[in-house]
Order: sequence, then structure tokens, then C-alpha cells
Amino acid sequence: MSNKNGVEWSIRVGDGSSMVLEPEHKNGVMRLWDRLKGLVVGFVMRVCMFIKKAWALGVDDPRKFFHCLKVGVALMVVSLFYYMRPLYDGVGGNAMWAVMTVVVVFEYTVGGTLYKCLNRICATFLAGFLALGIHWIASHASHQFEPYIMGISLFILASATTFSRFIPTVKARFDYGCTIFILTYSLVSVSGYRVDHLLSMTHTRVSTIIIGTCLCIITSMLVFPVWAGLELHLLVPRNMNKLAKSLECCVADYFGRGDEESKKTLQGYKCVLNSKSSEESMANFARWEPAHGRFNFRHPWKNYLKIGASSRSCAYCIETLTSCLDSKNQVPESIKKHLELACMNLGSTSSNVIRELATSVTTMTRSVKINAAVNDMKNAVLELQDDLKSLSDLLIQPHDHKENNEQVSSEMPVMPLLEVMPLVSFASLLIESASRIEENMVKAVEELAESAQFKQPEDEVKLKHNQATNKIVSDEENVIALQRV
Amino acid sequence: MSNKNGVEWSIRVGDGSSMVLEPEHKNGVMRLWDRLKGLVVGFVMRVCMFIKKAWALGVDDPRKFFHCLKVGVALMVVSLFYYMRPLYDGVGGNAMWAVMTVVVVFEYTVGGTLYKCLNRICATFLAGFLALGIHWIASHASHQFEPYIMGISLFILASATTFSRFIPTVKARFDYGCTIFILTYSLVSVSGYRVDHLLSMTHTRVSTIIIGTCLCIITSMLVFPVWAGLELHLLVPRNMNKLAKSLECCVADYFGRGDEESKKTLQGYKCVLNSKSSEESMANFARWEPAHGRFNFRHPWKNYLKIGASSRSCAYCIETLTSCLDSKNQVPESIKKHLELACMNLGSTSSNVIRELATSVTTMTRSVKINAAVNDMKNAVLELQDDLKSLSDLLIQPHDHKENNEQVSSEMPVMPLLEVMPLVSFASLLIESASRIEENMVKAVEELAESAQFKQPEDEVKLKHNQATNKIVSDEENVIALQRV
Repeated sequence: MSNKNGVEWSIRVGDGSSMVLEPEHKNGVMRLWDRLKGLVVGFVMRVCMFIKKAWALGVDDPRKFFHCLKVGVALMVVSLFYYMRPLYDGVGGNAMWAVMTVVVVFEYTVGGTLYKCLNRICATFLAGFLALGIHWIASHASHQFEPYIMGISLFILASATTFSRFIPTVKARFDYGCTIFILTYSLVSVSGYRVDHLLSMTHTRVSTIIIGTCLCIITSMLVFPVWAGLELHLLVPRNMNKLAKSLECCVADYFGRGDEESKKTLQGYKCVLNSKSSEESMANFARWEPAHGRFNFRHPWKNYLKIGASSRSCAYCIETLTSCLDSKNQVPESIKKHLELACMNLGSTSSNVIRELATSVTTMTRSVKINAAVNDMKNAVLELQDDLKSLSDLLIQPHDHKENNEQVSSEMPVMPLLEVMPLVSFASLLIESASRIEENMVKAVEELAESAQFKQPEDEVKLKHNQATNKIVSDEENVIALQRV
Repeated sequence: MSNKNGVEWSIRVGDGSSMVLEPEHKNGVMRLWDRLKGLVVGFVMRVCMFIKKAWALGVDDPRKFFHCLKVGVALMVVSLFYYMRPLYDGVGGNAMWAVMTVVVVFEYTVGGTLYKCLNRICATFLAGFLALGIHWIASHASHQFEPYIMGISLFILASATTFSRFIPTVKARFDYGCTIFILTYSLVSVSGYRVDHLLSMTHTRVSTIIIGTCLCIITSMLVFPVWAGLELHLLVPRNMNKLAKSLECCVADYFGRGDEESKKTLQGYKCVLNSKSSEESMANFARWEPAHGRFNFRHPWKNYLKIGASSRSCAYCIETLTSCLDSKNQVPESIKKHLELACMNLGSTSSNVIRELATSVTTMTRSVKINAAVNDMKNAVLELQDDLKSLSDLLIQPHDHKENNEQVSSEMPVMPLLEVMPLVSFASLLIESASRIEENMVKAVEELAESAQFKQPEDEVKLKHNQATNKIVSDEENVIALQRV
């Protein structure tokens, strides 16, 4: 065999480097064996990589492990219906429905589980009663017509329910219920044609489903519960903090003060850009959750979505800002220096506002410092605008001085606007992001604080108390003063 | 009863106006009756509104109606297993599984249905064989140990499979399969404890599931099929066209040439911002679809996602652009006029490029005009930059002329940079969006054209043919010329 036809084999060694296996002169069987070995080794390697990744995923958030164990335990418990004689005698083969319910209904978050459980129970009841009713009507007609009545009603109900799933609100809240409704209706109505004791069959089936859902609800709510509401409550401020860091890093990077570390944190805004769907699904699930921790049953989850939207509108700005970083026509450093301080200041004050809002959301406390922080940001905007004004003086200055002393003019070259443009647009994007923070984010958090009744900060409570006592004292002084007069 | 305590009732009349019902003096029963009537009327009104909305949804896309009818028909056909004696004798109560399969597996798109069908069949087979194997091992141990062996294996497999669902690739492609795997394994393994003829039970169950899936696949593929791939193929260029319109409207609006109509189309970019998740799910489903229309089995659907991402990166720019529209500190019209032509030109040439790319994607043909369009856009950028340069001259000009004639200076006031800034940043955002179109979108479409082997446009084929014949002619002429020499 010539080397030309030989296949070059390489394997990856543990430390990441790869070894090239020299092709040797071997007979057909040996080559096949080698090839097979290579395939197996490759497969094993891929499986190992996969497991490694999966393990890292679990270590990153151990609650995922707990969730898996919970599912396993719930299934074990529900399978007792088969293994224990007295339980099996009660429900018989219908125990299958309990097992099925646990498998299908158990979700990662409590809200998700509750959504599916309640949908399943309600839809089963509704469809079961409806099917029994129509079956009763049909059975009073002749046995010949029964299939037609049942078939046509099945067709109409299935089509209508399928159509309702296209409607956004139904899709968000009752999608699973629609599936179960069609399923139950069709099973009960077609079974009715063959099964004589339909009512008792329906009865055990519904009761096993209820047993399954109760088991799921109990397991998911009591054993290491993962509340969708709490997740949303933590996700939104976490995203805000990422945004704050991104903004700071972006400004620092622009003025050449970034390092490798900051290049990574700069990317944080991308998480915010793509967070919409996960936020929405969490808010959808949170709606089903009972009061837990600091959240009431009707906690205003929708307001979190508004904050999320305002974060995204900021993230769009930052996304456009980052394109200034790798822009080809960079502004000379000497000009950049002119705005550096003001830009850095605006960047850090804006981030401060975002962080302050994030803390306010996390702690569910109205912030004492937020007004001061917003004022700082506004001042930073004014400062930057002042610096931009003086930059425009720089553009024109040489001419102003021309009449007085020609020397200055030759020392300070005229800056064409085109050269300063990237810097100007960078500054104006910064100002725009500050205005979005003020107009969207601050307002959204304010709304949440209103509707979720955030508590007053302790300092302010104390301050108010002090003011009140001071007022009483001064009133008393006034009275005394009046009496003296 | 005083008027103060009376409840004010208002109903909505058909034409949209509302009528206030005057409270009258009535006895308790009548008032209760009125209240009930009001509730019922309100409920009926809401239901009517709901149906109206739903109807509009269906009229907007009649394929949704067809889908519902398809589901109904498939369910009717599968319920024949109950109604027809010979069919029922073949599968018995297991016909339930066929019905259940149809209800659960039938999705709107062919890809979605295939994804669920293939997942369901493979997972059922795999789990069934595994459960039978472990059951066989366990049954050779004593009957006393059997529950423990089955229970522990169930626990381990269920936990591991649940965990694998957290891994993104598994989640995207095999999520449904994982559920079915756990379901089948647990049902077969627990049934094995009670049912004696396990193999025949598994056999009929698998065969009914196969019957159900085949019915679904046939119905969804042959009767008015909705291909996820085709949907994605149409969605991406549609979004691009929306983007192009938005961009044009945005520029027109900025220079005060927009009307009410354009304010609506301006919002088109928002669709693009939120399209990520729907694009991804379509690409996921399209992967399962066989060759259809102009698409092969392994059509590069991933490239569509790249184009979608590039559209979004443009949309971010446009989102920031729109904030210039309602900015408080507007630039005076006289200054705006200076850049109007160049900006409008850049806006329309950029939109042209996007539209050209969209047409190229839709028709799956390499565009003849795209290079010219990109060049036009580049020239428009240069033109805008020139105008910006001359704008900076405008800032400085008065001083230049000061020495020559004082009069001009007083006529043309010096424009401070701060006042021009919004215009400058608007222009630079336009330039940025043009560069994103060139760097991201054009490249992404180019990649798709490469990997999907877009056909050459007919004109170009003709052109090449002509060039080739010309070359032969000129070669011949050269030869003749040489011979002459």
C-alpha cells in the first residue's frame, strides 16, 4: 500500500495536543480493526466531552441536579401503585395515568409545574364532563347514529380548540390545557362506544390524574423549590448589573484604559439583548405561583418585563456604542483627551444609576440614593455638553485668535469636523443612553416600586421621624415665643 | 336608594360608543336580575370580541384554518379504530395510543410534526427494548427483588434523561424524545410487574403509535403542507424588507418628509428585533424536513439564522436612529438642509442594498445588481462625509472670510458644535448602519449563496457567454493581426 492512499489518523491526547498515528503496512483485517478502534475511541472521546460539559452545567447550578433527583423520586413513589397490592387493587391498570401525569407534568420551576397541573386537571374535568354529556345524548339516539354524533362533535371541538391555540393569550396560558382537552374528549368519547362502565372508568382515570398532579405539586413545592418568580426577580437586576459593567467597560475601552478582563465583561450586554423570551416565559409561570418569600400571589410580574424592556433599549444603545470601539477612523488621542474625563464620568454615573436601581429591585426597598445618582448623571451630561462646547471652540479658536496673534493659530491646527465626528457620535450615544436610563429604566423601576409596594428605606424612616420631632420642638418653641410676645 | 350608592352601568353598543344605563328605583330581585343580565351581556360581548379577533387571525392567514381542519380529520380517521369492528379487534384498547399520538404529535409545520414523530418512535423503541431487557434480567432474579431492580433502574434512567434535557443541543433536538423515553420506560417497566404477556402488549402499543405517527406525517405533508423551511425562507427576506422600509422612513421622518403612513412603517424594525426565537425554532424544525420545493434535505438553514442576526444588528442601529427623531434639542432646519440630500441618498441606497439582498434570498439567485448597489451605497457614504466636511467649513467659514469681507460673517452665524451634534450623530449612525449592511448582511447572504448554491442570474450567464464569444473573436483578431505582422 502506498502512503498516498493511507489515511492519516490522529488522536487527541489528554492534554489537548494531538498525536499523528503513522500509517503502517498492515493487512486488511488489521486495518479494519484499527479503523474500528479509531471510531470507538472517537466515540468514547465525544461521549466523555459531552459528559464533562453536562457535568459543568450541573456544577454551575446544582439545583439542576436536585431537579433530576426530584423527578426520579416522584416517579419511584408513583410506581408504588404498581408494586403495592392494596394500592394497585384500588386503581388497577389506570395507575398508568398517574405515572404518565408525573412524567409529563413535572417542570423545572414550581410555576411551570403548577401551570401544567392546573391546566391538566381543569381540561380533563371539562372535557370529561362534556364527553359524558354528549355520549349520554348520543346513546339516547339509536346505536347506529352514535358514531356519527360523537365523530362530528369530536371534529368540531378538536378544530375549534386547535384554532384557539393560535391566539397569543390562550397560547401563553392554556396551551397545554388545550392539548389535554382534545386528548381527554377524544379518548372518553371513542371509548364510550366500546366500554360499558364509562363513568367508573372516567372516575378512576380522573382520580389517578389528581393523585399524579398532587404528587408533582408537593414534590416541586416542598423539596428544594425553584420559584419562577424568584428567578425572574433575580434575573432582571442581574441583567441590569451586567449592563452597568458593560457600559463602564465600553467607555474605558474607548479611551484605551481597558484590559483583557474588561473585554470579556464588555460582552455582558449581549445577555440582555437575548433575554426577552426567557423573561417572558418566567413571568408566565410566575403568574401561577402562590405567595412565596417576599412575593404575594398577585405580585406585579408584568412590571419586571417592563424593566427588562427598558434594559434592552439601553443595551441597543450600548451595542451601537461598541461599534465605535473598532471603528476604522479613530480620533487622534489629543482630541480624545479633551472629552475623556467627562465621558468617563458620565459612564460611571450612568452605571451607578443602573446599579442603584438593580439594588432597589433586588432588596425590594426604595432607594435613598437614586435621586442623587440621577442628579449626578444629569450633571455629568451637562459637563459633557460643556466639554463638547469647548471642543467646538477648539475647532474655531484658531480663527478667533488670528487677528490677535498669528502664532497660536499655527500651533493649534484646525480640526476638521469629520475627524472629530466619531468622538462626537460616541459622546452623543452616551448621552442618549443616559436619557434612556432616566426616561425608561428609572420610570419602570418606579412603577414596580409603586405596584409591589417596596418598603421605605430605614434611613429615610429615621429621617422622617427626626423631622417630625424637630417640627414638634420648633412648634413648641414658636408657641413659647408667641406666649412671650 | 340614593344615587350615591347606585352603581353606574354602561354597555357598549355595536358601533363602539357606550350607553350609560340610568339607575332606577327597583326592588332587590329586579336589581339582582339586572346585575345578572349585565354580567351575561358583558360576558357575551367579551366572547364576541374574542371570536372576532380570532376570526381576524384566521382570515389573515387561512392556513391556520386548514391546520385545524387537518387535526380534526386526522382525529376522525384515527377514531375509526374504535368504531370499526375489524380494526378494533386488531388492536383493542390499545387504539387509545393511536388517538393520543395524533393529538400530541400534530404540529402546525411539517418539520414540527416530523420532529415529534421521529422523536416519539425512536424514544418508544429504545425505551421499550431497554425496559424489556432489564425486565428479563430482573425476572431471572427472584420475584422479591424485581421491584427493587426495576425501581432503581427507573430512578437512574429518569434522572439522567431529565438532566440531559438541560443541555442546549439535546433540548433543541430531542426534548420531546426525552419525555417519551422516560414515559415509555416507566410504563413498560412497572406494567411488567403485573402484566404477563408483556411482549404482545408492547408490540400492539408500538404498532398503534406507528399508525398514529404515520397518519400525522401523511396528513401534514400531503394536505396543504406548511413547511417550516419555506416559512423561514420567506420570513428572513420579509424582515429585511421591513428593515429597508424602516430605514427609509426614518430618514424621511428626520427631514420632515414623513406622513402618518410612514410613521407606521417606521415601526417595522421592531419585528426584526424580536424575531430571534421564532427564527431559531423554525430552523430547528426545518432541519427535520425532507427535500421540498427548491430546498434539499440538508439545506443550510443555519445560514438563514446568520442573515437574521445581521438584520438584527442593523435593527439595533435603526432603533438608536429613531431616538434622534424625538430628540428634544433639534437642529435648526437651515443646517439640516445642508445634509438632507446626502442623508436621503444614503438612506435610499442602503435600503436598496437590503432589498436587493432580500430579493436574492427569495429567488435563490445571485444578484447581478448587488455590487453596483453596494458601490452606490459606498459613494453615498463618501458624499455624506464630504458634506460633513463642508459642514465643518460652515462652522469655520465665517472666520475665514472675516479678513476678506466682514459682511458675510454677520450674515452667517457661527454654529456651535453642540447645536450640530444631533445631526452629526444621526449622520454617523447612518454611516454605521451602512457599514453593518456591507460587513454583516452582504457577507451573510454571500455565505448562504455559496452553501445553498444559488443559481447564476440569466443575464450574467448571457453576459459571460457574450464575453466568451467576444474573447474568441478578439483572440482570432489577434491571431489575424499577428499573422499580418
